Amino acid sequence: MDEYDVETVADPDLSEPVLVEGLPGVGHVGKLAAEHLLEELESELVRKVYSTHFPPQVSIDEGRAELAAAEFYAVTPEDGRDMLVLSGNHQAQDTEGHYGLTDTFLDVADEFGVDEVFALGGVPTGELIEEYDVLGATTTDEFAETLSEAGVEFRDDEPAGGIVGVSGLLLGLGKRRGFPAACLMGETSGYLVDPKSAQAVLEVLQTVVGFEVDFATLEERADEMEEVVRKIQEMEQQNAPAPSDEDLRYIG
Amino acid sequence: MDEYDVETVADPDLSEPVLVEGLPGVGHVGKLAAEHLLEELESELVRKVYSTHFPPQVSIDEGRAELAAAEFYAVTPEDGRDMLVLSGNHQAQDTEGHYGLTDTFLDVADEFGVDEVFALGGVPTGELIEEYDVLGATTTDEFAETLSEAGVEFRDDEPAGGIVGVSGLLLGLGKRRGFPAACLMGETSGYLVDPKSAQAVLEVLQTVVGFEVDFATLEERADEMEEVVRKIQEMEQQNAPAPSDEDLRYIG
Amino acid sequence: MDEYDVETVADPDLSEPVLVEGLPGVGHVGKLAAEHLLEELESELVRKVYSTHFPPQVSIDEGRAELAAAEFYAVTPEDGRDMLVLSGNHQAQDTEGHYGLTDTFLDVADEFGVDEVFALGGVPTGELIEEYDVLGATTTDEFAETLSEAGVEFRDDEPAGGIVGVSGLLLGLGKRRGFPAACLMGETSGYLVDPKSAQAVLEVLQTVVGFEVDFATLEERADEMEEVVRKIQEMEQQNAPAPSDEDLRYIG
Amino acid sequence: MDEYDVETVADPDLSEPVLVEGLPGVGHVGKLAAEHLLEELESELVRKVYSTHFPPQVSIDEGRAELAAAEFYAVTPEDGRDMLVLSGNHQAQDTEGHYGLTDTFLDVADEFGVDEVFALGGVPTGELIEEYDVLGATTTDEFAETLSEAGVEFRDDEPAGGIVGVSGLLLGLGKRRGFPAACLMGETSGYLVDPKSAQAVLEVLQTVVGFEVDFATLEERADEMEEVVRKIQEMEQQNAPAPSDEDLRYIG
Repeated sequence: MDEYDVETVADPDLSEPVLVEGLPGVGHVGKLAAEHLLEELESELVRKVYSTHFPPQVSIDEGRAELAAAEFYAVTPEDGRDMLVLSGNHQAQDTEGHYGLTDTFLDVADEFGVDEVFALGGVPTGELIEEYDVLGATTTDEFAETLSEAGVEFRDDEPAGGIVGVSGLLLGLGKRRGFPAACLMGETSGYLVDPKSAQAVLEVLQTVVGFEVDFATLEERADEMEEVVRKIQEMEQQNAPAPSDEDLRYIG
Repeated sequence: MDEYDVETVADPDLSEPVLVEGLPGVGHVGKLAAEHLLEELESELVRKVYSTHFPPQVSIDEGRAELAAAEFYAVTPEDGRDMLVLSGNHQAQDTEGHYGLTDTFLDVADEFGVDEVFALGGVPTGELIEEYDVLGATTTDEFAETLSEAGVEFRDDEPAGGIVGVSGLLLGLGKRRGFPAACLMGETSGYLVDPKSAQAVLEVLQTVVGFEVDFATLEERADEMEEVVRKIQEMEQQNAPAPSDEDLRYIG
Repeated sequence: MDEYDVETVADPDLSEPVLVEGLPGVGHVGKLAAEHLLEELESELVRKVYSTHFPPQVSIDEGRAELAAAEFYAVTPEDGRDMLVLSGNHQAQDTEGHYGLTDTFLDVADEFGVDEVFALGGVPTGELIEEYDVLGATTTDEFAETLSEAGVEFRDDEPAGGIVGVSGLLLGLGKRRGFPAACLMGETSGYLVDPKSAQAVLEVLQTVVGFEVDFATLEERADEMEEVVRKIQEMEQQNAPAPSDEDLRYIG
Repeated sequence: MDEYDVETVADPDLSEPVLVEGLPGVGHVGKLAAEHLLEELESELVRKVYSTHFPPQVSIDEGRAELAAAEFYAVTPEDGRDMLVLSGNHQAQDTEGHYGLTDTFLDVADEFGVDEVFALGGVPTGELIEEYDVLGATTTDEFAETLSEAGVEFRDDEPAGGIVGVSGLLLGLGKRRGFPAACLMGETSGYLVDPKSAQAVLEVLQTVVGFEVDFATLEERADEMEEVVRKIQEMEQQNAPAPSDEDLRYIG
């Protein structure tokens, strides 16, 4: 297998689509958001990207094996612009893989004529969130203005550590290759899978890209998570040893 | 030395052999099973595969040094189909090595006209096993059906973490290269080298591939392991500090 | 993106400039020194070096994303020789990256006709420093003599562990490529960002290269750090648990 | 710089020399032995091998920087065969580097017409040694016989973990390239730099290769180490906390 191997599954025509990336990360915010899009809107699998920088692993679904891959779906909603949605279960396992995979993803974006890139993710605050702000980072002032009008916050030096992984490189390499790119980061505690943060991010994306989705299933999932949080807080009040952060990180 | 270096030791004709892989892994189930095959049936070393992704190491046997390698043996039992058995003491040391070695192994399989791949391994349950079920994962529905009839269990989303390493990639890359491939995973505690789990896996393989082997030496080894387990349980009842999981993992 | 990617931002003529490197390291001495130069003297960004060996990361400044890079600035002070100042926020993430980046940096130095290389850094002593000595290491005896006259100390087998990273390789690879190169290492505790050590290093560089800068802002920063140290010592006297070394390392 | 870069320093004619390797390892036995050879016999530096797989580091000797390298010396003693002695302060930092460096070392051996390879090292026993046996491993039966006659012990499955790093690969890759190769491993506690173990290894080498060296300086160094051991044992008897293994490992 090549270091980066793009499999063409379908080749629909898209009209100046936006790329929407939601790979695993903090609070699984980006991944939840991308998957919710794919569940609520009609979508077609168009590309699979395999790489020797992904974990050497197959996932098993009802006894059938699937090689680790990232997947591109074409989404053509009635309202709003066409989208190319990038989802998957893995990040690259090493530094060079992050760069190489992001370049490969931008090659696919090029093929489909993508003219704007949205990387979705979460930004950890370390505490439970009451109001779900969405932070932004972009490569152009025009893009920043559009997002500001949609309620995205731009703060000096935030996130302090920059943006790491594919989301960050879609901006860094995207800028060098001439794609206007933005990262939408939902605030999240960082301790729990966070459907509410994913919803906040998607609400911004709806406004900017122009589609509409139902949030019922995401809200249900959020209710389940709140039940978990409520139980933890009860346990804490009873002085029982609470589940550790490590436990919480993987609930959901 | 090349990154992947295949040494031809012998070149017998095999008739549509199946590839049987048993490299080190959970409970050493796959490796025990493959080695038992090679002890019980006549076999001929046909290929050695060296790689700069194997540990930089020689093993010493009676003062003679052998470079880290994986080995292919030709097995042509009287009953049943010809087999190409892949065994060895090492896994690749990095992500790219897992992909590259698996591709190299499938190249050898191609050369010998292999038309079905069996990866043997263990699936850890975290507790001592009473009844040794064999879990399966395949790349085709037909293959799954055959294995189901032979008693292999297919469970939704099991193993939960997918299959990692060469065993997993033989399915993932095998599928992409057109090999029907299956992984047979014997349940095992994960704490001990597990000859009983290896026997359970081999019994399925016997049924499907059609050969027959004696299990006496594997049963002896299993009795030795049970003696170890019995002693540990005694120690636990006497409230003596039991050997840690870490200790147990390497017994045998 | 290529493994090493040099972006030309400007191309001024420099007259036999010296290369002055100040990337992150012990006590951030080199980086503080290089940044102080760039703040106090007029400078022009001339090259950006991107690499797949840098962290897969963008930094965010007022909502705008910048891909991890090292930067070369041209400095042409009224007094003294022209300088090419290399600064940035990152070191390579792996061994080969250190070698490859240093070679790339020397390629840029070649382009600009650099004829002497100064790597700036800190050498950890493990205790708070009263008098800030500057240790030296060079590739030629002539260079060592010049530096000795400027007050740089040369000690047998110091630093004991040699010099690691880009600073070390600028000497090692520089020597092989014919650049006279020196490393100026300010003594520093190793626990705190150390503006005083940076000043000591710059004072040597002033003498040798012939420019002049004001140290007021560096002295202010040093006063702030001393306040931090004073508070820590107070806390220690009150037997309160002091901040750990780990905490201190990142103050500043 | 190339991944592996061989610098020719001198090019004397050697007559069917043996290669003697002594890079850092257990108890620094191999390195001590090789360095003692170079101190006691006349030698000439003939090759330096640089590599991007060595640490990105220069060592400093009286203020002069030297890039990490391995060095080959030509030794032509009056009695006995010519030798090519390989010494240095570093091992490769990764798996592929071990393979690539060993292949590069064997290329140099080829150039000089080497017809036998001796890798020198230590084998850790975990306890202080009374009688310093030398264990052997070879690639040919003839070589084993010669060494047995010189007092080298060959034990089944020892060392249990095989031989790791350049010493192991000189046998593994050497065998594949047609060099008869042997590893001479002096028993050593593994806790201390061990000049006595180095002497034991050199005494075997003297017999087999036919040179003669004085051991006075090695014996002095051994006396110093014994003094260290005596003090530790005293401290233990006084129930004072003894230096940890970790401390001891770096004494000397």
